[in-house]
Amino acid sequence: MLRWLTSISALILSAFATVPAALAENPVCPGRPILADLRTPAQTSIPAQTSIPEENPAPVPAVPTESQLKWQEAELGAIFHYDIHVFDGRRYVQADNRISPIRDCNIFRPDSLDTDRWILAAKEAGCRFALLTATHETGFGLWQSDVNPFCLKALNWKDGKADIVGDFIESCRKYGLEPGLYIGIRWNSRLGIYNFEPSGEGPAKERRKAWYRDYCERMVRELCTRYGPLFMVWFDGGADDPLTGGPDVEPIFRKYQPDCLFYHNSQRADLRWGGSESGTVGDPCWSAFPTPYSHTRSNESESAHLELLAHGEPDGRYFVPAMADVPLRSGNGRHEWFWEPGDEDNILPLDRLMEIYRGSVGRNATLILGLTPDDRGLLPEPDRKRLAEFGHCIDSLYSHPDAAAAGVGSVHTLKLDKTRKTGCCIISEDTAGGERIRRYRIEARTPQGWKTVCEGRSVGHKRIERFPAVRASRLRLVIAESVGTPSVKQFSAFYDKDYE
Amino acid sequence: MLRWLTSISALILSAFATVPAALAENPVCPGRPILADLRTPAQTSIPAQTSIPEENPAPVPAVPTESQLKWQEAELGAIFHYDIHVFDGRRYVQADNRISPIRDCNIFRPDSLDTDRWILAAKEAGCRFALLTATHETGFGLWQSDVNPFCLKALNWKDGKADIVGDFIESCRKYGLEPGLYIGIRWNSRLGIYNFEPSGEGPAKERRKAWYRDYCERMVRELCTRYGPLFMVWFDGGADDPLTGGPDVEPIFRKYQPDCLFYHNSQRADLRWGGSESGTVGDPCWSAFPTPYSHTRSNESESAHLELLAHGEPDGRYFVPAMADVPLRSGNGRHEWFWEPGDEDNILPLDRLMEIYRGSVGRNATLILGLTPDDRGLLPEPDRKRLAEFGHCIDSLYSHPDAAAAGVGSVHTLKLDKTRKTGCCIISEDTAGGERIRRYRIEARTPQGWKTVCEGRSVGHKRIERFPAVRASRLRLVIAESVGTPSVKQFSAFYDKDYE
Repeated sequence: MLRWLTSISALILSAFATVPAALAENPVCPGRPILADLRTPAQTSIPAQTSIPEENPAPVPAVPTESQLKWQEAELGAIFHYDIHVFDGRRYVQADNRISPIRDCNIFRPDSLDTDRWILAAKEAGCRFALLTATHETGFGLWQSDVNPFCLKALNWKDGKADIVGDFIESCRKYGLEPGLYIGIRWNSRLGIYNFEPSGEGPAKERRKAWYRDYCERMVRELCTRYGPLFMVWFDGGADDPLTGGPDVEPIFRKYQPDCLFYHNSQRADLRWGGSESGTVGDPCWSAFPTPYSHTRSNESESAHLELLAHGEPDGRYFVPAMADVPLRSGNGRHEWFWEPGDEDNILPLDRLMEIYRGSVGRNATLILGLTPDDRGLLPEPDRKRLAEFGHCIDSLYSHPDAAAAGVGSVHTLKLDKTRKTGCCIISEDTAGGERIRRYRIEARTPQGWKTVCEGRSVGHKRIERFPAVRASRLRLVIAESVGTPSVKQFSAFYDKDYE
Repeated sequence: MLRWLTSISALILSAFATVPAALAENPVCPGRPILADLRTPAQTSIPAQTSIPEENPAPVPAVPTESQLKWQEAELGAIFHYDIHVFDGRRYVQADNRISPIRDCNIFRPDSLDTDRWILAAKEAGCRFALLTATHETGFGLWQSDVNPFCLKALNWKDGKADIVGDFIESCRKYGLEPGLYIGIRWNSRLGIYNFEPSGEGPAKERRKAWYRDYCERMVRELCTRYGPLFMVWFDGGADDPLTGGPDVEPIFRKYQPDCLFYHNSQRADLRWGGSESGTVGDPCWSAFPTPYSHTRSNESESAHLELLAHGEPDGRYFVPAMADVPLRSGNGRHEWFWEPGDEDNILPLDRLMEIYRGSVGRNATLILGLTPDDRGLLPEPDRKRLAEFGHCIDSLYSHPDAAAAGVGSVHTLKLDKTRKTGCCIISEDTAGGERIRRYRIEARTPQGWKTVCEGRSVGHKRIERFPAVRASRLRLVIAESVGTPSVKQFSAFYDKDYE
């Protein structure tokens, strides 16, 4: 990984000399560029039809699409998990759920359902997008599907006419959050689909597999065509590999949702899972990745691959930014994506949430918090309250810097209005031209002179650096290594009262 | 089989001497008697709690329930097959259909559906009951199921609110036919159930099997509780064996439909399939049968078992009368239970239908004709027309005997008004006391003296005997062998113009 890291100036020179056209169409995902033009930062207009030199690929950073930029700028989102077993009064055990068909879908009766209130609660936390499990592992669909009869049509509730996906998306738009959907097709306990595969053998299995492939594709078409532009579609556990008989959902998705983030199948991932459900990613955490997909069936459980997911690879040719996910109800050893009675005490405390925030958003990832509407159809008040506290805390800590700078180049200096106690800096790189910063340090001018307070490697969309508070009159970001000319959107200093 | 047949008088004596209480509750199906009281014919009041002598079972005939008597008296019924593939425009291949899930249920749009007209067409043929495939091998349900979402709820047609089962039963009642349902649970291409078994292995299969068992039981509960008293429920291919993990539908059925005919599972069959789908049964054809069930998984394809189904066993301890079934569209080598385009030429011609009638109703079986509503939701006019011709032919041939007699005893004589040409007799036994006639002959008094015109063994509910027409002034039914005192409800003579 380090073989391409040289000093900034050498790199800029070599880039100009050897990579006259270091841009290309992504061969798997047309329209998705993979390499940056190093000459000017943040140049996002991409010439088409430019070929990549296949030998000795140049050490130029991968660049994001507009959608990926928006994803990084969103920083925080929510995913709402909702399915029939929320109503069964029992503990949810995923491994059991996957192989145990639901007995009676009519237990699903969220008589106080209010997706407006779900979205308002997410908005209070600062979420800029929200996802809903349109269908999870039971196979039940939260919409009026013409493909999957095991959906809201099957219920007596609301005379079989409810459309929670529609309501959810409408609530998102009403309150200014970007809507997205989660589509689970890897497991379907009702249809007997386990890890993408129908059980059995022979012609019955072959026909069933072909049928299920078409079924998935048609569900995806429905969800991609009925509700207007979406922000993100999340196939949990992926959407399998069309080259080995899995559903070929990506072309359908691309046709109907060209500006939406696709996550993911064995060919394409517009973002990547950060390797854990802890809500944090590795440090460093690069958005660049060696492949345009994040998983295959074979590598997904390898520990080396989990490391790669957590860290990315600075010279990876594809921009596949990291996502950190964690359910809000993760306290006390619990880890619950779905609502269950009696779990209120396990809502993450605020300090844990702030650690998660710094370990994800503060490390160049987008954080998705798992939220759990209950059997009334409401997000419980203790969850809502914690989300509001979380949003308030982020806002109060990080919205009002003591000083801020921006610009192109390798050294950026902040002049404070006076000698102040400072314990935190935020760095944001303009990632439109790729992540160019490869090593940096922050120095503080204390009464005792310049002193390095922290150093690091990846920056990307946002880097929150906290350090033992110092009294300083100036702070200086020194970019010690980069690929191409770095462009800093924000370098700002905060006191961060946690260090009092 | 013949070891119990002796002369009438000896048998009556031995029966009185050795079987003081030859009646018992059927241990599998409480309330269903299995043996007759031989002393008086047609004695149907059954003392409860009487035990059967287990050793040397007496040669007394099995007796029917009230429902079975009604079944035999009905003589002719219709079964309407209707499922999604009627709408696919393709040839139906059952073996493929069983393993090929339906792609798009919304092809089901019978915009001219009129169950009244279905039932009126069946009534024109003389059907006294009608059955509908509530669910067949696709798993699609023709009602508003809360258990099976793959039902009319799933359709855009009629805004997902249609209930064809309900409409059908209402039409039956409106026009005086007894309603019944066919419930297919042996195959379910959507759920991946093949010959009762979910595919796969291990815990996933075990859970799925348990779930499917419950699913079937709950479907049966729905169908048995929503539509009032039914005449017959037909589990095609049976409802499996509850003792080996199959659904235990019989207790549910018995609770909610105590007067309905149950056909069938591995424990109970109130009637039996006659061993072919030719529309005819064997000769002789006894209603008595050695077991209270007609099939098990292991015996169903044995040729000896098919023989037993076709003939019954005169000394069988259980009354399990025969059913003959055939689709109306069975001509020219076709055999279609479902409508397909272009099959009108394959409607059975009237003479074939009359052969079938004589080989089923005329041999002590109840005939069920398969009728095929089309993709408009109507029974096609050529089918309706043939049914009307069939009904008219039966009526004109057999409704107006030249002479008729009835009574208890072994010799019954008909005196004709004059010397007439006669080519047909109908014999009906009062089967309430069991089938007692074991061998008979018919003699005609011709100008040349008494002459045997035919002889046979089983009579039961109805025996149509045709013979080369003779000129006779009297006809005599001589019951050469019987078990207990035979009781003849009807012995009648016809010219039967076919013999002109």
